[in-house]
Amino acid sequence: MADTVGFLTMADAVAHTDAPEIGVGMLGYAFMGKAHANALKKLPYMIYPPPAVPKLAAIAGRSEAKVREAARRYGFAKAYTDWRAMLDDPEVQVFDNAGPNDLHAEPNIAAAQAGKHVISEKPLGRNAEECKLMWEAVKKARVKHQVAFNYRFVPAVRLIRNLIDAGKLGRIYHFRAAYLQEWIASEDFPMVWRLESKHAGSGALGDLGSHIVDLARYLVGEPKSLMARTETFIKQRKDARGKMQKVDVDDAFQAIIEYRNGAVGTLEASRFCPGRKNSNTFEINAEKGSVRFNLEAMNELEVFWKDGERDTQGFTKVLVSESYHPFWSHWWPQGHIIGWEHTFVHEFAHFFEAIVNKTKVAPHAADFEDGYKNAVICDAILASARERKQVDIKY
Amino acid sequence: MADTVGFLTMADAVAHTDAPEIGVGMLGYAFMGKAHANALKKLPYMIYPPPAVPKLAAIAGRSEAKVREAARRYGFAKAYTDWRAMLDDPEVQVFDNAGPNDLHAEPNIAAAQAGKHVISEKPLGRNAEECKLMWEAVKKARVKHQVAFNYRFVPAVRLIRNLIDAGKLGRIYHFRAAYLQEWIASEDFPMVWRLESKHAGSGALGDLGSHIVDLARYLVGEPKSLMARTETFIKQRKDARGKMQKVDVDDAFQAIIEYRNGAVGTLEASRFCPGRKNSNTFEINAEKGSVRFNLEAMNELEVFWKDGERDTQGFTKVLVSESYHPFWSHWWPQGHIIGWEHTFVHEFAHFFEAIVNKTKVAPHAADFEDGYKNAVICDAILASARERKQVDIKY
Amino acid sequence: MADTVGFLTMADAVAHTDAPEIGVGMLGYAFMGKAHANALKKLPYMIYPPPAVPKLAAIAGRSEAKVREAARRYGFAKAYTDWRAMLDDPEVQVFDNAGPNDLHAEPNIAAAQAGKHVISEKPLGRNAEECKLMWEAVKKARVKHQVAFNYRFVPAVRLIRNLIDAGKLGRIYHFRAAYLQEWIASEDFPMVWRLESKHAGSGALGDLGSHIVDLARYLVGEPKSLMARTETFIKQRKDARGKMQKVDVDDAFQAIIEYRNGAVGTLEASRFCPGRKNSNTFEINAEKGSVRFNLEAMNELEVFWKDGERDTQGFTKVLVSESYHPFWSHWWPQGHIIGWEHTFVHEFAHFFEAIVNKTKVAPHAADFEDGYKNAVICDAILASARERKQVDIKY
Amino acid sequence: MADTVGFLTMADAVAHTDAPEIGVGMLGYAFMGKAHANALKKLPYMIYPPPAVPKLAAIAGRSEAKVREAARRYGFAKAYTDWRAMLDDPEVQVFDNAGPNDLHAEPNIAAAQAGKHVISEKPLGRNAEECKLMWEAVKKARVKHQVAFNYRFVPAVRLIRNLIDAGKLGRIYHFRAAYLQEWIASEDFPMVWRLESKHAGSGALGDLGSHIVDLARYLVGEPKSLMARTETFIKQRKDARGKMQKVDVDDAFQAIIEYRNGAVGTLEASRFCPGRKNSNTFEINAEKGSVRFNLEAMNELEVFWKDGERDTQGFTKVLVSESYHPFWSHWWPQGHIIGWEHTFVHEFAHFFEAIVNKTKVAPHAADFEDGYKNAVICDAILASARERKQVDIKY
Repeated sequence: MADTVGFLTMADAVAHTDAPEIGVGMLGYAFMGKAHANALKKLPYMIYPPPAVPKLAAIAGRSEAKVREAARRYGFAKAYTDWRAMLDDPEVQVFDNAGPNDLHAEPNIAAAQAGKHVISEKPLGRNAEECKLMWEAVKKARVKHQVAFNYRFVPAVRLIRNLIDAGKLGRIYHFRAAYLQEWIASEDFPMVWRLESKHAGSGALGDLGSHIVDLARYLVGEPKSLMARTETFIKQRKDARGKMQKVDVDDAFQAIIEYRNGAVGTLEASRFCPGRKNSNTFEINAEKGSVRFNLEAMNELEVFWKDGERDTQGFTKVLVSESYHPFWSHWWPQGHIIGWEHTFVHEFAHFFEAIVNKTKVAPHAADFEDGYKNAVICDAILASARERKQVDIKY
Repeated sequence: MADTVGFLTMADAVAHTDAPEIGVGMLGYAFMGKAHANALKKLPYMIYPPPAVPKLAAIAGRSEAKVREAARRYGFAKAYTDWRAMLDDPEVQVFDNAGPNDLHAEPNIAAAQAGKHVISEKPLGRNAEECKLMWEAVKKARVKHQVAFNYRFVPAVRLIRNLIDAGKLGRIYHFRAAYLQEWIASEDFPMVWRLESKHAGSGALGDLGSHIVDLARYLVGEPKSLMARTETFIKQRKDARGKMQKVDVDDAFQAIIEYRNGAVGTLEASRFCPGRKNSNTFEINAEKGSVRFNLEAMNELEVFWKDGERDTQGFTKVLVSESYHPFWSHWWPQGHIIGWEHTFVHEFAHFFEAIVNKTKVAPHAADFEDGYKNAVICDAILASARERKQVDIKY
Repeated sequence: MADTVGFLTMADAVAHTDAPEIGVGMLGYAFMGKAHANALKKLPYMIYPPPAVPKLAAIAGRSEAKVREAARRYGFAKAYTDWRAMLDDPEVQVFDNAGPNDLHAEPNIAAAQAGKHVISEKPLGRNAEECKLMWEAVKKARVKHQVAFNYRFVPAVRLIRNLIDAGKLGRIYHFRAAYLQEWIASEDFPMVWRLESKHAGSGALGDLGSHIVDLARYLVGEPKSLMARTETFIKQRKDARGKMQKVDVDDAFQAIIEYRNGAVGTLEASRFCPGRKNSNTFEINAEKGSVRFNLEAMNELEVFWKDGERDTQGFTKVLVSESYHPFWSHWWPQGHIIGWEHTFVHEFAHFFEAIVNKTKVAPHAADFEDGYKNAVICDAILASARERKQVDIKY
Repeated sequence: MADTVGFLTMADAVAHTDAPEIGVGMLGYAFMGKAHANALKKLPYMIYPPPAVPKLAAIAGRSEAKVREAARRYGFAKAYTDWRAMLDDPEVQVFDNAGPNDLHAEPNIAAAQAGKHVISEKPLGRNAEECKLMWEAVKKARVKHQVAFNYRFVPAVRLIRNLIDAGKLGRIYHFRAAYLQEWIASEDFPMVWRLESKHAGSGALGDLGSHIVDLARYLVGEPKSLMARTETFIKQRKDARGKMQKVDVDDAFQAIIEYRNGAVGTLEASRFCPGRKNSNTFEINAEKGSVRFNLEAMNELEVFWKDGERDTQGFTKVLVSESYHPFWSHWWPQGHIIGWEHTFVHEFAHFFEAIVNKTKVAPHAADFEDGYKNAVICDAILASARERKQVDIKY
């Protein structure tokens, strides 16, 4: 790479910038692993100059063939079938947990104990108890910790938060969120790990609901109490061997939330909504206006301002893609939209910035404290559904 | 009118058709009175040939000047300031109650006792108890009775019911409805009768919520149990004399409903949603598809069919305006949309048809039994909100 | 009607108000006749107090049975099979021409000569020549004259005009309009009068295109020159007796227009657009903002303001239904939408106001001068399509 | 990178796969350069296994500082300020021209003569003449050639083409496209190269219009004749030194197109449309249905099928994001949308596949023949606008 042919020679094009290289060890190579790897690779040339250049040091996974293939595909230098071994690797400075819910607590705690910074997929754990252990471990180890609630990093969502912080909305009356998908709304759909409480903790609640619980906390504030219901529409499904197995998680939940600041609203998630591909929608109604968001059209935001010009008041559809919008200076000219995967680029940049510049992960990203509080709320939803009465939120 | 000038003479153009004339006595001349009068006048030439020709026999109201003006404006033959006197009028065969909530029970019962058919604005009463008395009175008198839940008469809503009846949706999983308005979301808004429980019974619940409780029963079926919350954001408002008065009704409510057929969902109403003009939206997710409706675009309906052609599946926006759509043969060619007021034309035609042809008011209109059951559910919402626990629905 | 039963007696409830009664003689009882009759009947109690009370004096039509039926249905006092006889009737003060295109010139001219005010369906005539004769006749007779370009009376359209008049949009760059329908996009569709030039003058151009030519003149101004193309996709169709007949009108046209004020744009109409029910859409791009309109959602308007607050700029969807919006004080509370038929109520109220108060019909309604200029432009479109070159507009 | 720490060692993680490495030399580092570099970097791990692994061999650009920075940022091995020197580099097998319009012809021809495969930004040249020279050069050199009309690689656009190829739409009646932006709609906007004909060739026509001319040819077929108009609203602008310069390109154009297969329609582009960020919309109306597309919501597609179930017919909004949709197997689960940049990943994968597998670039990508024909049409638009009459298209 060092020979000169033309006018200029790039001494070390791989390094990209003067930013420090930070070694990342990732657990998992499935859907989330792919999203994380892509983000790590895009980060240094799109968020430019980057706070750090992630070095794809190692990847770990159960299947030797698959983890090897993933390493070749994404360019990880090493591949492990034992995540414990990967945590011993001195080239790994950041542990990136893209594994399933039941593989969060033990590796995250071990990583903290090994002095690695930890970024973990959501929900942080299967219940508040294991989340608390994780939170305590990272606090004790004094490492950086982040939960990958990536929807905080949608430009439109950050814009809403900025509007709220600037007092543009005033007192919030309502937060109404529903995360709806369709993929198990058929009796033919088989038993999978996401339908077993031992692996997933809960169903639609942990998978989808935890996202909107996080957005509620990020945008509105802390809940005070809630009433909730869960439902399992199809109670048995066939496993890979054709045997009927009990579904012991929720297919859907609905919750009524009262917030400490006086706002009230609903949260709902379901995987039984035909036509809803990845429909994470919410609306805020407040003293000075309203905002609406829909993940399937994530580059858009709808806002209503009470003080808008009278004759032409209404909901304005903002195409969030101007250079002055959150994160957009890194991307393209206006109207050239970005995709779902870009939220991961933003959240990894945020995490590396926290590591390099020693800034706080919260409030714009969720840290393990947020992950724990999220789990307390999810647990309270299950408790209210069981007891059929209001439950107060206590952290 | 009987002289001949040209080729033809209309002997009695006023009669329109051979349909019987039926005398109507209406109580109220405000917003609802205007909507009802308009419907009664349009009915005989738009729903043609009409089941009956409503004869605007009389109108009653508190203010002599206003009721006189209303009679002149709409063409009522007589005007009364005492509704009791109007009920003695033998030319009144139908009593049309377009008055406020606290003027439903007594006049409706008196009308039934006087042998008049009764069509009453919604909610039928301020609570289940007074609704039950009304229901018993009309049953005993053997008169026709209907509650003016006009949204059952939106063509798109009837179309949804028809699809459900035809088995096109299959098992219903979710019904998610929110009726949102904005008009009292300001501390400056004054005290009005709709904010006093003695007049209105409840707040957003009775005014808006009763509509979606009715749609839930019409489209999904009977509720089994519910959990609910109410909120009053602004607790005192200035009356006409500038004195602060306590708001003792709900500004908003949220409810989680479980239906007898296994469906689950949410109902919500609020008048604290800036930008939401008259936003009555609902969505049904079912085994074979989903449907969505929004009153502000009431000529439209969105449907998703699971068995639609794979490559181009999605939500289809139906412009409900074809001659084969419910009620549309009476109106205009496709795409020439109708308005909110037309729902009243449909519901009055339905009621007169029931009178003339001795057909049943239910299930396509709400009768007083429906009005009573609606009130039971609304009362349960208030009870659950008070007691902060699940309440079972018992009629 | 004069006997007293209750407290009050309405001496003459039919009169409604102190407004003068004006006798109307209408020609035609089909689609447009229905729309006009409905508007005449709604006018006096909805546009209240009305400028005049239209008295349904007479209706004329070719078929005795149908015209008799229409008179009974709508309450016209007399029915004629000869429109000439109706024009002799002294009770007819206004001639309302709701007939087909080839029945405009002769009756409209005769009505003017008989001293009747004339309101005529659009397009005013089949070509500029016969429009000019009509315009000259009404000028000479000094009667009021209006062409029923009803889309000027959509509240959103009037609002746009008001915004333009107030300088809110500034210099107009573009006007882009397309009126698309689907109803003849099939070889099976039969030969009808609208597909014959001797009856209709032109095809999509006169039927749909004349509407957007009118909106262009109302909102942008006078055209300077144009280039256009017409197309007939299906050149022969079966008539009622199964015989193939030549279609000698356009199925679609496209035109590029240059306006005297420097704006440029396109006009297009077609009846070959599957799924487009009654899709009359236009967009204006101007110095200070843009507006968009779609007739199928006629209660809505989209606006973009260049000086809107930077972070949340975008197209605002206005639900044009507030009491301060054009015409809305006569209707319902916000969000309770109106329909296509209501535009006719507005335009008749405007015409009667012009008669009673001796105000000008233009600019907010089209008069016969506008009808003539419209035809000049439509003729120029046909000429450009024939000659395949630019044609200048000269009135 | 070769030392073993854990269970597995990645011998050559950089290579990713067994696919051949192909050296790319890119000209340009601005907007397009960024988009191309990103695509080249994403290709090998997202389009997996990739047809080839692009090796970022070299980048060329005028400014030494900027080209050096770009090489560091994206990881190009070498940087050149002289593109001629880069074309001498044997490690460059593919010449990727991401430069401005006036830097297409000479480098592209030189690259072909040097035996490099050439992928060039659009429009291919400033006029048909220079495009023809480029086409002849690549033909003669027998290298692969592609013009980067990236919108052919939007999944929804490819899906439309597939539907057409499968006969699902039948005979096409209309193609109606408008590419609208807002960025120069202000007198304050300065003189830039895109407003000078010597650099850009034309204005909105070449920049935006060439995209929709390409889509028209890809989806409908070859044009037969056209009529067109161009407009320059603001005729002088200030250059960087504050001196007024003449704008000698079009700010907007409108064209009426007749296709050889009998379809007709309009094409339009403008940069004077406030609120239109990057609004490339089109609609096809055909015998069996219609389709609509909007680039600002590029993951969506609207379709209407004439043979859809009668009661719920309408435009279906397809969220094009299922694994069976074009290109989607490479990305994410349904509803997790992609962005504008991803079209470049698809088009580069297509080009490398053509190189490696010796497949044809056309018809799914545009080759230089398409680039030439595109320029013939654009030239005809300018000619028709000058001569104010219809111009026939002859290649």
